[in-house]
Amino acid sequence: MTDDKTYQSVLEAIAFNEDGLAPAIAQQFDSGEVLMMAWMNRDAVTDTLRTGRVCYWSRSRGKLWRKGESSGQKQVLKDFRWDCDGDTILLQVDQTGVACHTGRRNCFFNAARDAEPEIIAEVEIDPGELYGPEKSEK
Amino acid sequence: MTDDKTYQSVLEAIAFNEDGLAPAIAQQFDSGEVLMMAWMNRDAVTDTLRTGRVCYWSRSRGKLWRKGESSGQKQVLKDFRWDCDGDTILLQVDQTGVACHTGRRNCFFNAARDAEPEIIAEVEIDPGELYGPEKSEK
Repeated sequence: MTDDKTYQSVLEAIAFNEDGLAPAIAQQFDSGEVLMMAWMNRDAVTDTLRTGRVCYWSRSRGKLWRKGESSGQKQVLKDFRWDCDGDTILLQVDQTGVACHTGRRNCFFNAARDAEPEIIAEVEIDPGELYGPEKSEK
Repeated sequence: MTDDKTYQSVLEAIAFNEDGLAPAIAQQFDSGEVLMMAWMNRDAVTDTLRTGRVCYWSRSRGKLWRKGESSGQKQVLKDFRWDCDGDTILLQVDQTGVACHTGRRNCFFNAARDAEPEIIAEVEIDPGELYGPEKSEK
């Protein structure tokens, strides 16, 4: 999917906030599972559309975050959508392995149960296997 | 589901931002469709958990926004979840009618097609029927 398009009209349709960011929801394209939410700037959107692999903006590291570049748990873009106000992005993706840095399939593993927090999903891959002692992501 | 619990430990698990808000993704609980993204503050979370109907914080109106109070297009809460960092909420809901103020089922009706924006969903209910001349929501 690599190409030399500018994606200018898509970028103009998205209302990035005062920090130049928009929240992006990643959803597994076939099952509908909501995997994670992260942030994108203009460069991350362009990189994602150009390569067909999801790239976010890491607010903590202050740089582009090509999902899976450390962990191997990449997201192949299936569809790029945005909402009525243009201020939220919905990425339909095909997730390799697990989306969450904890080693769980998705990040939304906390739930309110009888008014108390409860963890509702198991760790599938040891985070040490994903990143190793030298690596970090997110 | 109305009760007198405080939901304090759930509120403490959520990392509201510097404006006291957290993004909340609403997903149709059975189909997996991502319906919309809006914002919640502590009062909105408490109201949602207490009543079993989704309540957001309207940033534009500066007040609690009980989804459907104007339009009738309410969201019954099926599950309340949050992510690994505690900074994003995932609401599994049963949506009455349409979620989007444009009268579409969900808000994510814009997609990149060959690098250009394209509208991929039809209006299902005339917004004039939802809100009427005197009403507004969102």
